[in-house]
Amino acid sequence: MRQSQLFTKTRREDPKDETAKNAKLLIRGGYIHKEMAGVYDYLPLGLMVLKKIEAIIREEMNALGAQELLLTSLQNPALWEASGRFDDKQVDNWFKTHLHNGENFHAGSELGLANTHEEPLAAMLVNHLHSYRDLPIYAYQFQTKFRNELRAKSGIMRGREFLMKDLYSFSRTEEDFRDFYEQCAEAYLRIFARVGLGEVTFRTFASGGSFGDFSDEFQTLSTAGEDIIYLDRERGLAINKEIYNDDILKRLAFDKEKLAEVKAIEVGNIFPLGTRFAEALNLHFIDEDGTKRFPLMGSYGIGLGRLLGTIVEVLSRDDGICWPVAVAPFAVHLVTLPGATEVRGLADDLYQQLTKQGLAVLYDDRPVGAGEKLTDSDLLGLPYRIIVSDRTLAANQLEVRVNADQKTEAVAPDKLVAFLDSKQQK
Amino acid sequence: MRQSQLFTKTRREDPKDETAKNAKLLIRGGYIHKEMAGVYDYLPLGLMVLKKIEAIIREEMNALGAQELLLTSLQNPALWEASGRFDDKQVDNWFKTHLHNGENFHAGSELGLANTHEEPLAAMLVNHLHSYRDLPIYAYQFQTKFRNELRAKSGIMRGREFLMKDLYSFSRTEEDFRDFYEQCAEAYLRIFARVGLGEVTFRTFASGGSFGDFSDEFQTLSTAGEDIIYLDRERGLAINKEIYNDDILKRLAFDKEKLAEVKAIEVGNIFPLGTRFAEALNLHFIDEDGTKRFPLMGSYGIGLGRLLGTIVEVLSRDDGICWPVAVAPFAVHLVTLPGATEVRGLADDLYQQLTKQGLAVLYDDRPVGAGEKLTDSDLLGLPYRIIVSDRTLAANQLEVRVNADQKTEAVAPDKLVAFLDSKQQK
Repeated sequence: MRQSQLFTKTRREDPKDETAKNAKLLIRGGYIHKEMAGVYDYLPLGLMVLKKIEAIIREEMNALGAQELLLTSLQNPALWEASGRFDDKQVDNWFKTHLHNGENFHAGSELGLANTHEEPLAAMLVNHLHSYRDLPIYAYQFQTKFRNELRAKSGIMRGREFLMKDLYSFSRTEEDFRDFYEQCAEAYLRIFARVGLGEVTFRTFASGGSFGDFSDEFQTLSTAGEDIIYLDRERGLAINKEIYNDDILKRLAFDKEKLAEVKAIEVGNIFPLGTRFAEALNLHFIDEDGTKRFPLMGSYGIGLGRLLGTIVEVLSRDDGICWPVAVAPFAVHLVTLPGATEVRGLADDLYQQLTKQGLAVLYDDRPVGAGEKLTDSDLLGLPYRIIVSDRTLAANQLEVRVNADQKTEAVAPDKLVAFLDSKQQK
Repeated sequence: MRQSQLFTKTRREDPKDETAKNAKLLIRGGYIHKEMAGVYDYLPLGLMVLKKIEAIIREEMNALGAQELLLTSLQNPALWEASGRFDDKQVDNWFKTHLHNGENFHAGSELGLANTHEEPLAAMLVNHLHSYRDLPIYAYQFQTKFRNELRAKSGIMRGREFLMKDLYSFSRTEEDFRDFYEQCAEAYLRIFARVGLGEVTFRTFASGGSFGDFSDEFQTLSTAGEDIIYLDRERGLAINKEIYNDDILKRLAFDKEKLAEVKAIEVGNIFPLGTRFAEALNLHFIDEDGTKRFPLMGSYGIGLGRLLGTIVEVLSRDDGICWPVAVAPFAVHLVTLPGATEVRGLADDLYQQLTKQGLAVLYDDRPVGAGEKLTDSDLLGLPYRIIVSDRTLAANQLEVRVNADQKTEAVAPDKLVAFLDSKQQK
């Protein structure tokens, strides 16, 4: 894409109403726009990143045999009253609204805006689950959640409105459930590795709530994290502070001496739900022996905005982001500096050539000064920056910088594709 | 996909609370699930159709040079008070909610749930539009809209919550605006043709509201339509009853004698907005001569659920849907009937072979009776149905039915790929 056609602009100054690094850099780069605290628009570059994250997650969900669907935001209270979760005293982050009753918008039937989807999914499946032969069922979605957070100061990491991947499993037996739960845990680790956070993300024991002994979180080490975990690097496992005590350490075979207290961001969680929601919504099946049973349920969430924000928190410098190739809006930033007309000609040719090779290129063809271009390029943070200027033209060499290690190399124009290939980044 | 693994089931009986044919067939087929009137979940097969429609629209939007973004549902009232559209008396279909104020959810700041996005888009662009060189700007999204409809009896054709493609244009001059407006009208006709409604969809003059003489609707002929239009088939143009009078007919050079009064479904609309929203939100640019000017705005909408529902209304029979290949969840329905084990072997081979050829195949491998399988197949309505049974095996011929014309042909197994190719459907 030619940058002259991109409608978003960068800005030099941090937004005054943001304290989170992710929001500062993403707003300055024109990736997102703030509507209000915890409510952000995705502008074209930001949406490209979000869609790449979505595609990676979708691949891993499909590989688990899960089927994608799309449930609604508007919620019938009856389904949530059945589980006791419509009451604001039970769930403290509902947004609620009213159906127009013909006279007054604000006096019709009350509706909820979904913050999760156990209840409507279980209720819907009553039409589709009859026999043990229908199990297991794995269903997931990418859907906008609404959570009426009292405070939302972490940029896109704690949204009042945000896109979430939520997967739900329905299994016949505890063994089947646990087997899938572990498969999903492995898929989650693959997802976090693929988006560039593999080395700093750890499976973490957390509270199981009323459903079981433990749930599992996936925590990414970051000073911006709101969670505290105790990490055993050797085992590659951690334990959330909320359940940290000597009894539990012993039960989980953690050696206190080996644990480091660190801040972390919860980028995903997986949760055993037992039969609570199936019972509440009367979702049952007839087992092989003719008895009526409730399926065992699990839920598995990843907030896409939070994951995107975490990538920025972990992989950026003060002057810009450093996108991993797998989620970068473009792999290559091709930048001309002001100079002879031949500079433009060579850059145009390179743009055609790289695009033809299947590389996603943002081509900064704007007629602005070198300083502005380089500052913008640092801020946007694409994996490979290629400079074309009078100087590089005279030397018959391009200046290629790899963002991840900030190393710059001189590469002849006709060797560029091979060079980028050698970086195994196509 | 193996149908035995699809978690949705069909049902024989029409849902009792639906009068619209689209909702009846889609619910019976397991494409959608009703949460409440005007609020539907997309189950796996339904979501596949929705995603195919989305992909077609996205291609056409990108070809116009429009850039995709994603705005939010939660709306700050201040932006809408600037244009006078937050008041329920001015806009009669708001859903509104409240921000948690720390004590009471229902007493915090009031927020709206977006039913359209002119105001937030114009406000956001204040950060990005400075000079006439920044124009034109074309931005679009696929985003969930909320509309508090008093009545919602048309199945997925009138949603209280629905996915909409909304495109907005910002142009420097009236000429630039009109030029893009016409390009978009052509793109819309291509979209409706690609989803299979080309022959029954007509550009239709409609009220311009307060912004101009006319807007344009795209109306699909259907007895299920809520609109009445007067159609000149020769010109391929129509006029909405809402503006039908002798003066306007004359102005638009319609010959009254040639007009037929017909019912139609509005599947899209394009709308000149002038400078109303730019002025209200103070979105301006500095023109070449140094003067401050407001861009001319247009909006261009297609409701994806309504379009999907219209395809069902127009292209179905009482016993099932008839998906065009371009939007079908699968191109081929491969169905085994109960019989010898060789039937299953041949079908397994065909499934592998067709899938390898890049065809999307739903393979009904379920151990159920022939009657149930054929009834389900009619209901689901995939473009090509291939029967493998003892009878077809004995004849060394498959039974291939083309859903669009209901014609059945006998095709040798080794000629199947060529046969489907010859239908130009891959």
